[in-house]
Amino acid sequence: MFEPDYTSALLQQAVEALSRLPGIGKKTALRIALHLLRSPESETLYLSDSLARFRKEVVFCKECFMISDVPLCPFCSNAKRDHSLICVVENVRDVMNIENTGCYNGLYHVLGGIISPIDGIGPSDLTLAALRERLQKGGVSEIILALSTTMEGETTGYYLYKYLKDLNVLISAIARGVAFGNELEYADQLTLGRAIENRQVFNP
Amino acid sequence: MFEPDYTSALLQQAVEALSRLPGIGKKTALRIALHLLRSPESETLYLSDSLARFRKEVVFCKECFMISDVPLCPFCSNAKRDHSLICVVENVRDVMNIENTGCYNGLYHVLGGIISPIDGIGPSDLTLAALRERLQKGGVSEIILALSTTMEGETTGYYLYKYLKDLNVLISAIARGVAFGNELEYADQLTLGRAIENRQVFNP
Repeated sequence: MFEPDYTSALLQQAVEALSRLPGIGKKTALRIALHLLRSPESETLYLSDSLARFRKEVVFCKECFMISDVPLCPFCSNAKRDHSLICVVENVRDVMNIENTGCYNGLYHVLGGIISPIDGIGPSDLTLAALRERLQKGGVSEIILALSTTMEGETTGYYLYKYLKDLNVLISAIARGVAFGNELEYADQLTLGRAIENRQVFNP
Repeated sequence: MFEPDYTSALLQQAVEALSRLPGIGKKTALRIALHLLRSPESETLYLSDSLARFRKEVVFCKECFMISDVPLCPFCSNAKRDHSLICVVENVRDVMNIENTGCYNGLYHVLGGIISPIDGIGPSDLTLAALRERLQKGGVSEIILALSTTMEGETTGYYLYKYLKDLNVLISAIARGVAFGNELEYADQLTLGRAIENRQVFNP
């Protein structure tokens, strides 16, 4: 492997910093650095400033912990959304994915992770207390658990259920079943079994 | 495609700036931005500063046009290298590749491109005049053309030959032939034909 530091420590440092990013190896990092060198200086400064500003100024919504530019995110401050409904998700990308469906108009609550003893993530590392406080304030009639169908997701869901059930708020979970477009032949047994148990009246 | 600008203009701008880089799409850009958000702020500032400093401060060597932190690059200022030999290459990466072989101890000359009428790149866009000046100063006995085996590479080589032949400097070119590890069966006709023409005494 060549050492691009041979003639320029500045290049070496830029390549090293870029290659710390996920999915970017030394070769890609070098390609990016040389691309920046060929482009106008303003391009690099735009990138550099955008990243620094983003990291320094972005905040998490004080209610739902979604990424936001202001203390209260556009969801939580939007009177047109259904404030009686809170969808509980693991992370910021889940919010984006659900928004993308165009099927949901309530609020969110980002847990900031999922209970995972193996990774040393316990309930106290998540925004559970803040969720309980939101519910205690009143006005919320239902929370929807939209967590991954994994051991950790199930554990977190079960924990949340126990932690919040005294608050007299309906706790629901997104439907599990055979995904659209999936062939039954390849569906795993657990999914298929649950899908049969949770069968619904056919009403096309 | 989701619009990650939904809740944060800062995130949107960071993702947009990242996705301008070669090989980085919107999805990867979002993954990188969220990764930076999970990492310490110092990581992002290190990246941001490294890129800005690199782009603002890096220079091209005034002799050979290699990337450098100082006006005269470490090759040109290294008395231990053979200053009578100049290897002419298209770009900075070629220098790195040749250095990597560990087979060369002379100097370089980076053309900054290759003659390509289709891309509108003519001789005047390259560092040819500077190369001629270097040779005119004396002390150089041979230049080695290490250009791609493409139409553009051949054209550039031929142009250089005509442009420099009055200077009484030996002009050589790197050997062309069947690459090491390549099966003869799959070598193209041009390469194979040239390899036969340029056959060498077998001396293992």
